[in-house]
Formats: sequence, structure tokens, C-alpha cells
Amino acid sequence: MPSTPIAAVVLAAGMGTRMKSDLHKVLHPLAGRPMLFHLLDSVAALDPERQVVVAGARREQVESALAGLDVKLVTQEPQLGTGHAVLQAKGVLAGFDGDVLILYGDVPLVTTATMRRMLDRLHEADSPAAVVLGFRPTDPLAYGRVIAGPDGIIEKMVEYKDATDAERAVDLCNSGLMAVRSTDLFGLLARVGNSNAAGEYYLPDIVMLAAADGRRSAVVETGADEVAGVNSRSELALVEAEWQRRRRLAAMTDGVTLIAPETVWFSHDTAVGRDVVVEPNVVFGPGVQVEDGVVIHAFSHLEGATVKSGAKVGPYARLRPGAVIGEKARVGNFVEVKAATLGAGAKANHLSYIGDASVGANANIGAGTITCNYDGFLKYRTEIGAGAFIGSNSALVAPVKIGDGAVVGAGSVVTMDVEADALAVARARQANMPGWAAKFRATMAERKKAKG
Amino acid sequence: MPSTPIAAVVLAAGMGTRMKSDLHKVLHPLAGRPMLFHLLDSVAALDPERQVVVAGARREQVESALAGLDVKLVTQEPQLGTGHAVLQAKGVLAGFDGDVLILYGDVPLVTTATMRRMLDRLHEADSPAAVVLGFRPTDPLAYGRVIAGPDGIIEKMVEYKDATDAERAVDLCNSGLMAVRSTDLFGLLARVGNSNAAGEYYLPDIVMLAAADGRRSAVVETGADEVAGVNSRSELALVEAEWQRRRRLAAMTDGVTLIAPETVWFSHDTAVGRDVVVEPNVVFGPGVQVEDGVVIHAFSHLEGATVKSGAKVGPYARLRPGAVIGEKARVGNFVEVKAATLGAGAKANHLSYIGDASVGANANIGAGTITCNYDGFLKYRTEIGAGAFIGSNSALVAPVKIGDGAVVGAGSVVTMDVEADALAVARARQANMPGWAAKFRATMAERKKAKG
Amino acid sequence: MPSTPIAAVVLAAGMGTRMKSDLHKVLHPLAGRPMLFHLLDSVAALDPERQVVVAGARREQVESALAGLDVKLVTQEPQLGTGHAVLQAKGVLAGFDGDVLILYGDVPLVTTATMRRMLDRLHEADSPAAVVLGFRPTDPLAYGRVIAGPDGIIEKMVEYKDATDAERAVDLCNSGLMAVRSTDLFGLLARVGNSNAAGEYYLPDIVMLAAADGRRSAVVETGADEVAGVNSRSELALVEAEWQRRRRLAAMTDGVTLIAPETVWFSHDTAVGRDVVVEPNVVFGPGVQVEDGVVIHAFSHLEGATVKSGAKVGPYARLRPGAVIGEKARVGNFVEVKAATLGAGAKANHLSYIGDASVGANANIGAGTITCNYDGFLKYRTEIGAGAFIGSNSALVAPVKIGDGAVVGAGSVVTMDVEADALAVARARQANMPGWAAKFRATMAERKKAKG
Repeated sequence: MPSTPIAAVVLAAGMGTRMKSDLHKVLHPLAGRPMLFHLLDSVAALDPERQVVVAGARREQVESALAGLDVKLVTQEPQLGTGHAVLQAKGVLAGFDGDVLILYGDVPLVTTATMRRMLDRLHEADSPAAVVLGFRPTDPLAYGRVIAGPDGIIEKMVEYKDATDAERAVDLCNSGLMAVRSTDLFGLLARVGNSNAAGEYYLPDIVMLAAADGRRSAVVETGADEVAGVNSRSELALVEAEWQRRRRLAAMTDGVTLIAPETVWFSHDTAVGRDVVVEPNVVFGPGVQVEDGVVIHAFSHLEGATVKSGAKVGPYARLRPGAVIGEKARVGNFVEVKAATLGAGAKANHLSYIGDASVGANANIGAGTITCNYDGFLKYRTEIGAGAFIGSNSALVAPVKIGDGAVVGAGSVVTMDVEADALAVARARQANMPGWAAKFRATMAERKKAKG
Repeated sequence: MPSTPIAAVVLAAGMGTRMKSDLHKVLHPLAGRPMLFHLLDSVAALDPERQVVVAGARREQVESALAGLDVKLVTQEPQLGTGHAVLQAKGVLAGFDGDVLILYGDVPLVTTATMRRMLDRLHEADSPAAVVLGFRPTDPLAYGRVIAGPDGIIEKMVEYKDATDAERAVDLCNSGLMAVRSTDLFGLLARVGNSNAAGEYYLPDIVMLAAADGRRSAVVETGADEVAGVNSRSELALVEAEWQRRRRLAAMTDGVTLIAPETVWFSHDTAVGRDVVVEPNVVFGPGVQVEDGVVIHAFSHLEGATVKSGAKVGPYARLRPGAVIGEKARVGNFVEVKAATLGAGAKANHLSYIGDASVGANANIGAGTITCNYDGFLKYRTEIGAGAFIGSNSALVAPVKIGDGAVVGAGSVVTMDVEADALAVARARQANMPGWAAKFRATMAERKKAKG
Repeated sequence: MPSTPIAAVVLAAGMGTRMKSDLHKVLHPLAGRPMLFHLLDSVAALDPERQVVVAGARREQVESALAGLDVKLVTQEPQLGTGHAVLQAKGVLAGFDGDVLILYGDVPLVTTATMRRMLDRLHEADSPAAVVLGFRPTDPLAYGRVIAGPDGIIEKMVEYKDATDAERAVDLCNSGLMAVRSTDLFGLLARVGNSNAAGEYYLPDIVMLAAADGRRSAVVETGADEVAGVNSRSELALVEAEWQRRRRLAAMTDGVTLIAPETVWFSHDTAVGRDVVVEPNVVFGPGVQVEDGVVIHAFSHLEGATVKSGAKVGPYARLRPGAVIGEKARVGNFVEVKAATLGAGAKANHLSYIGDASVGANANIGAGTITCNYDGFLKYRTEIGAGAFIGSNSALVAPVKIGDGAVVGAGSVVTMDVEADALAVARARQANMPGWAAKFRATMAERKKAKG
């Protein structure tokens, strides 16, 4: 069948009071990316014709986050219920003829596959007026119930407080998500009333209004984890945990060893190759690519970094944006790499800061090496040639070039370029003063006693 | 009603054999504070008139821990049961007329609210002789059972081994905690016998003795987690986990984002502001205050530190006692700060040790900077002025002052004060020796071959 | 009774496709040791007369791992089922008269005690033909069922797909592990057919073949966790988690405090003493010994290291192979120790690399000290005497000796030996240039504006 145009309406007008935050609820990050964007990513895979976000308080934060995206923002003010919220999208959807998905900015884990199932159901032979996404929580609590036959045809949608005991015994609940044809949606919404305790216009009412017209609606089911909503920081943590659980499982299925999966945090876009081993306690920030056969030792933190095949990283390695670790290269403990490329087989094993630099293949960066890349105003680059050897505790004052195969003596402060195969040393002559320490101890012991 | 005076008797005379420790069981820390003190903190909120701890083995450790506190210590020796233990407090409670709470040093999570409920129950109209704290564990095992009516009036207290099958089917168990009027307590205790297999005097027997006098007792219920006891290190870990679970939830409820709550460890006194983000794997030792809007990156360890609003800390930051991180200041990776103040906007981003120092506003501490604060005998201070720039890999030999706006060249060892706006450099001239490295490689390759 | 000789046949011929790995499945490590060796360790405690591993694909990897061990390797090629696999061991077991244990290389957690129970059962009065190890999983899924009487005598072994509803309702499942007398095993195996859907020879068929001869077999039960198998990386993670859970519990039972047990990873051979405290997030690699009363602070990583009694390590300490930390010595944050001994009471508290070195008792290694032990070709040793004091940010260029009680000035590069009680200084004179920084700032501000 030819595919029907799709529009998505994302409700995001709630106050989010329980978050106790100055940041709009839907902008709180999940796996390093605002939760709203997780949802929009899943929508994007459906190639939607129009997308609308309905915001209320802190609308300007959402506006700024959506800048440059093909997503319209409308305002719901005052906030008179979910039905009223969807109505605000009417203008943006004017002239649109297709299927409308109604989603929630604070229900971010819904997959493209589930959205697709909802849309497909809308087009089955019995042509339901609305498709409702249902779920069966472990504890149904006070959710609205969906009373449906085994064929998924909805007999009744009922709020918990209005439900009979028999209806409350039903564990199929309403997630709030819906798919409705644009040609049906706004006509039904116009008829929704607000004669209820809260004086609100409820979106689910359109199901019973359609039924009054003799049109059936249908429920599509999904797992409770997928429709988990975020109303507080603890719920945010639960959604994050569910996202991480899925991602860790996917990594293991793809051939990544996670010794302690529950201690590895992925970002939304982390890419990890086959036969990679990740030890306990590793954090992947956004923008990380790890190729095959890499080992990430414990307590490592990667962000915006590429680690090429066979490299070893950590423990306690900090890779920051722009770090590129070459094949079989090695970044060891207490080493920070930022905006720097390490060539194949290069090593920076201990207590170093490599920033704004290029390090040639098989170069060896001694313990305690610091690239001095900043003078308080500008940043400068350090270039270290292939096979160069930087002695321990050296400071390389950029801009500076160390040639291929050059050696820098331990403890040097290098301010001038070093040509290939040369040695550079910049350190003071050692002077030994016999007996000094013994005298010093005697003096100090005296002084401490006097003080004590 | 006028409030009745309160006394607390804390039993802590058990041997703690299963802890396999040289440290007294009730002194094992929970959230960084001896578990006994968690209990005493909850008691303190009731403003008790008298407090008694009953100790046995390792009494001297408890004595030393309680030094300076308004808590009496009595000894139970030999240890002839819980009833006998409470009797040891008789002397300390001589002349006291009020309510006595009987608590256990190894049951540290009981809240003030629960204690208050027990005391309030003692004063309800039916005036029970004793109030017992009951709980319903998931698996009641061999706990003593409390047989009570729906009104909480106790019909029978029965040890598991003496219970009928019907009684064992009851899941309401006796935590051991009690509230009794001082005027009742010691009279009842005097009548407790030891005609049982263990030859011990059991505290719960007072309930049946009162009943024989025609006086009813009552049970107050609480959750099983609150009355979890510590008899082994695994039970200690479970109690710690429960404490942390509560604390993490409270933080999130207050507006703190914990990306992975299960990986953040709080101390008993950690204070964290609103819109603070705590990444995975952060440890708070005692004495930490974190203001609003702070970000604590992964793998950070804070103890006795204050972090002011908008500051960013970590990853891998170690803040030790006396660290004060100013507004919007930044402490980065592999940086240790001890007894040092960083002014607003100051930065120490990489691989540094800042100890016994003050750093002015907006000063920049380069990578690898070390304050040399110790000569093996005494500690000295380093003062760095506002807007100063300390070049990377510098050693500042205290006592030393770097003036406002001064610059220290990279790799310098600074032993003399630097005036404001001056440059200080202390490094050797660089010498390059062309071809040296190539020759060295040839020689070493030869040598390795000869050895090999 | 005189003990019967024992042989173990370990099946390891599966392809392990779901691991998505170039490494043979049974060689994937568990607690830092190939899972096959965990099983062989448990077998070894039975003092077996013969051991055979049956491999298929990647046989050469297993061969290489078993090199030097008294374990024969045979090949199953093609792979025609478990019965066929055991048959491949016939040659190796020629002339062997005793009990044969049939185990699986990817079921690594089976304990010696369980193996012993299986063997003992084989020799009970009723003399079963085979002893099958059964278990009751939470969700029996599609496992083969063991239909047995309360006495453990097996009535029927049935594959899930052939089972009746009544048989499927039985939750006792077949782990695949068996004990059979060598005199029975190969005769029975010869009679196993392959008339089934997969065309394979199934080992469990020997139970029904023996029954046809009028010989009963018996089931011995164990917990489901013990017979967990590894077919994917997520199952590997589950088995690792179970191993760690057991190990953590054992540590706590032995008197080790684990503040957050779920964040401490042990290796197969970690030894930890009494009254040791391990903070959250500690990784023990292979070969670690920790004596009594040690504190391991958070975020520490130990491998091949010995920590003597009363020492304190971390947070963020990295102890590598050959690190020996003396009594009451102290290794602090961001410190790496490799192939180095720290004497009693010695301290290396901050940001140091101590490699190929010996540090005398009570020596103090200042922050930022680096032993320069490598010249790109060879490694050299640093010897630091008792009571020596190494000033911060020093580089000790090995080979070099610092005598007892000697002092090295902060920021020195030490290339020559320092005699006992002497002071060594190697640093440049400090020059201050008044006003330079103010001028520099003005120039740079100009330049930045120009760049704009």
C-alpha cells in the first residue's frame, strides 16, 4: 500500500513541578541527549511530513533547543488538558491529510517499531477511528483502563476513579499515546467536553465520541518499560536505567564483552566494535567510536573520541573530544587526551596531558609529560614525530615541533623545536650537598619541639 | 498534652562474633558514621532526658566513642539476655519518671518518627503497659511472632520455637524494640525468669507478665527495612544499601539529577543543592556541601569540601577536607585539592595538587602544577592571586606568594614570591644535540641484541 | 570405601556463534581466568586420573591454553551431538577403570562438592547406571525434563519438545552433566542412535538405554545458578555476576567490610585479610594479596600486588604487578606503582609513578614524583633509602640511588646518585620580570580582538 503521510504531535506543556528544576522537563538528558530528542529521533525514522511540539511554561527553552530543526512549536496557554493541548496543533496541521501520532515529550523510550505498529493498525481492514497504545504494568495503580476484546477492539476507556471493580481488575492500561487520522482528529476533539472534576478536556474521550458515531477504536499493546513516563528525577533515573539496560544488551549481543554490564554507561550515539572488552566502570559520553578488538580498562571516561582497532585505553584514561587513538596505541592511567591524535602504536601510559597535539606512530610519551597548549588567551599545537621519545616529566611549550625519532631528556622544558633524530635537554645541573639533610632534620625537629 | 520525659536504653552488649572484627559491632560505620551514632541522632531529635548504652565486650571502644556526649555507659557482664541487659540501666534511670525506649545499637535505621509513634501509642486512651515495634518481613524465618488483634492489642508474644503452626503462619514479627513507662519497666523486669533452654532473661516476657496483671500491651508496625539488624558484614552491607537507597531517593526528590543513583554514595551529612547533576560513580565522604547548579562529573571523590554554585568538578577530582571551590570554578581530572580555597571562576583542570593554598578568582592553574607544601616536618601555605596564570608543570615551593595577575612560566620551580603582574621563570636553557638520538638508538639496539 | 579413580570429560566443541568472537568460548575469562580453567580447578580438587577436553572449531586455541597441563585434547569433527562428543574421549580413556564425570566447558561454576555428590551417588547401594545433575530453574523454558521419584530414581528423561503437558509441568531439568562408570559408558554410548530431527547422538539417551537393560539411573539436584551455561556475552556477564556474588559474600563472611559489595570485582585468586575495608568501586586483577587491617579506598585498581597489614591505598591508586606496599605504608591518589617495593610506613600520596624501584621505610615521595625507568630500550632501577624525602615534581632518572635520609629538592631532575643524608638540588634560578604579565595581557587582548 502507498504510505500515508505522517504527522507527529508531541505534548510537552506540563509544568514538570516534581522535577524541581529550572530546566524544562523534556530537555533533561537521557543517555547524554535531551529526552525530547530521543523521541524525535524515533519519529524521524518514520519520515514525518510535519512535526509539532506543544509547549507551555519555559517554552523559550524548547524553542531554543529546536532551533534549526523542521519542528514547529506551538503554545498551550492556559493548560486545559491533553485534548486541549492537541487542539493547539490544529493550525500547524492545517491542510495536512494523513495519520497523526500523538506522543509525549516525557515518554521518550517509545520505539519507531511501536509507532509503526500503531499506524499500521489504523489501516487494517476494520479501519479503527483511533489506535490507543496500551500496556500492562506490574502494578496498574490508578492508570486509566482500556476495556477491550481479544481482537483489540476497545469497548470502553475508563479513568481509574470512574471504573467499577470489574474494570479495575483489568490490567490493560492507557499510555496516552494515540494514532488518529487527521480527518477524524480535530472533528472529534471539537466535541470533547470538560464536564469533569478537573474541568479539563481529555484526549481519550475521542474514543468514546467515535464509538457514539458507531466507529470502533483499537488498542495496540507494548511493554510497560517502553511507555515509562518522567515526572520526577527518580523516574528519569528509571528511564535512564531502562535505556542503558537495552543498550548494554545490544552491545553484548553484538560481540562486546561487558564484564559488569551494570557499570558501563553508554551515550545515545556510542559505537563499539566486535571483540571489544569493556572493564567495570566505564563512562561513554557522546560522540565515541570504538573499533574492533579494543580493550577499555576500568574507570575510563571517553567523550567525542575515536579508538582504533587493537588499542588499549585506561584504566583511568580520560579521552576528550577530538582524541583519536591509533591502532594498537596505548593510553594509560591518569592520562588526558584532548583534540589530539596518537599514531599507530604510540604510547602515553602515565600521568600525562596531551592536548592540541599530534603524536606520530610508535612515539613514546614518558610519564608526567604535559603539553603546555594554552597561554591564558590562545591555544597552540604540539607536533611530535613518529618514533620520538619524550622523557618523563617534560613540559612541551606549544607551539613546538619534536621531529621524528627525536629524544627529549627527562624533566626538560622544551620551548624550541627539536629536529629529527636530535636530543633536546633543558634542565639544571644537579648539585649534591653532603650532610645537609641531617642538619635540616636536626633543626626542624628542634623547631617542631619549640612549637609543640 | 504536656510532653513526657524520655529516656533511651540502647543495647550494645552482643559479642558481634560473626562480624569477625576487632572493632565493636556498633562502631562499624554506616554512611561514614558509626551505626550507633545514627541511632543516637534519631534519639536526639526526641530531646531525651537520659540516654544509656549497655555494652559488654570491648566496652572501652564504646566508651571512647561516646566521650564528651551526654550518654551514660553501663556494662552487662555476664550477658544473660535482653531483659538482663535492660536491668543494667536501672541505676542510671534511678529517679527518672517518664517513657523508656529500648533500642538496639545494631538496629540503626529506626527513624525518629517511628520512635515517636511508639511513644504516642503508649499514651493513647487504652494506656498499654508496653508498646512493641512489629514488622512483617518477606520471609519471617525464625523471628518471634506477635499475635495481635486488628486494634494492635497483643494477645501473645511467642518465640518461633514455641509457636504452634497457626502462630507461625502469622507474619507479624517482634523487632525487639519497645517503649515502656519507667514506672512499669523495672518492676516487670524484676519478675522475668530464666527458665528456658538458654537460661536467659528475655525482655519480651514483660508483655505476658503485664498481661497476667490484666494489663494489655500494643504493637506498632513498621517496614522490615527499618528494623534490619546487623550481625555480619553482609547484613551491614544490606543496611548501608538501604540507607543509601533512601538518601538517593531524597536527593532526587529534592531536585538533584543522579544519572545512575545506585552508583552514588552519600555520607550521613552530605548536603546537595537543587539542579545539581551527579554523574555515575561519585563518592561523598563526610562533611560535604554542594550548592545549586553544580555538576559533579564521574569518578569524583569529595570529603569535607564545599562546592559553590555553578562550579564543575571532575571527572576524577579528589576534594579533601578544607577544599572550597568557588562559584563557577572548575576542578578537572586527576586534581587533588586539600585545605585550599579556589576563588570564583578559578580553574585547575588537569593533574594538579593544590594543598594548603588560596587561589584567587579567575586564576588559571596549569596542568601538572604542584604546591610543595610539606618539607617532611611542617606544612606551608601557597597564595596565588586573582587572575594569576600558573604555567604547566610548575612547582610552587611554599611558603610562597604569587601576586594578582602574575604569570609563572611553564616548568618553573618557584621558590621566591612573585609580585603582581610580574612574570616568573625558573628553568634551564634548552640545548639541542643534532643526531644524538639516532646514534643512541644504534648503540642501544646493539646492546639489546648483545643481551638478548 | 577405597576411592574409585576419576576421569573428567569436558565438552567444548560448540561453535559459540552467539558469542560473536574470534576467541574460543571456553577461553573467555571469568574473574580474570578462562572459564574452562575454573571448571578444571574444581575437577583438580578431585585428584582425577585422566582429563580430556573435547574441542572442535578453534581447537588450536584450546590446545595452546592447555599446554603444559595434564589434560588431553581430542577433536570432535564433525559435531554430531553430545553422545558423539563423549565418544571421542574413548581412546584417551582406554584402559581406565573408574568413574567418568561428563562436564561442559561453558558451564564453569559447578563446584567440586557437587561433582563429589554425583560420584558418591554412583556408589550408593542401589548402584545407578548413571547419575544426572538436575536443577530447578525459575523458568524451565525448553529444557529437557527429568521425571524422577522422590528417591531420585529417574523414570524418564524427556526432551521438552517430546514432553507431554504433565511432563512439562515438572520443573526438574537436565543440566547435561553426568557421572557414569567407565565400564558402562562406552557400551551404552555405542547403542545411542540418531533417529531424531537433528540427526544427532544425544548423551542423555544412555539413561533410557540402561533402563531398557533393567538398570536404574538417579538424579542429584543442585541450584540453577551453579549450572548456568554461557552461550552469549550476556550469559557470560550473568555467570560473572554470580561468581562475584559468591566471592563477595565469602569475603564479608571472612571479616572484610565491603561498603558496596556490588561494586567490588574480585579475581579468581584474590586473597583479602580480616578487618580490611574496601570502599566502593575497587577492581582486583589477578595475583593480589591484601593483609589484615588494610583500607582500600574508592576507585582503586590492583593487579599482581601485595598490600601489607595496616597499609592504606587509594583513592585512585593503581597497583600493578610487582607492587609490594609495606606495613602501614600509604599510596594515595593518582599514583601508579609497578614492580616496586614500598617499605613500612613509606608514603607516595599524590600523582606519582613509582616503577622498577625500591623505596625504604618511612621515605616520603612528594607529589608529582616520577621514576624515569625507561629509555625506550631498557628499564632501570631506582633505589630510594629509608627516611629519604623526595621533593615534589622531581624526576629520578634511573639507574639512580638516593641514600638513606637524603633529601631531593622540589622540581629536581636527579641523574646522579645522592649519598645518605645529603641534599640534591637540580633546578634553575628563578627570575622575576616585573610588569611583564600586564604587558603580555594587553598584547594578547589586542591580538584576540584582531582575530575576532
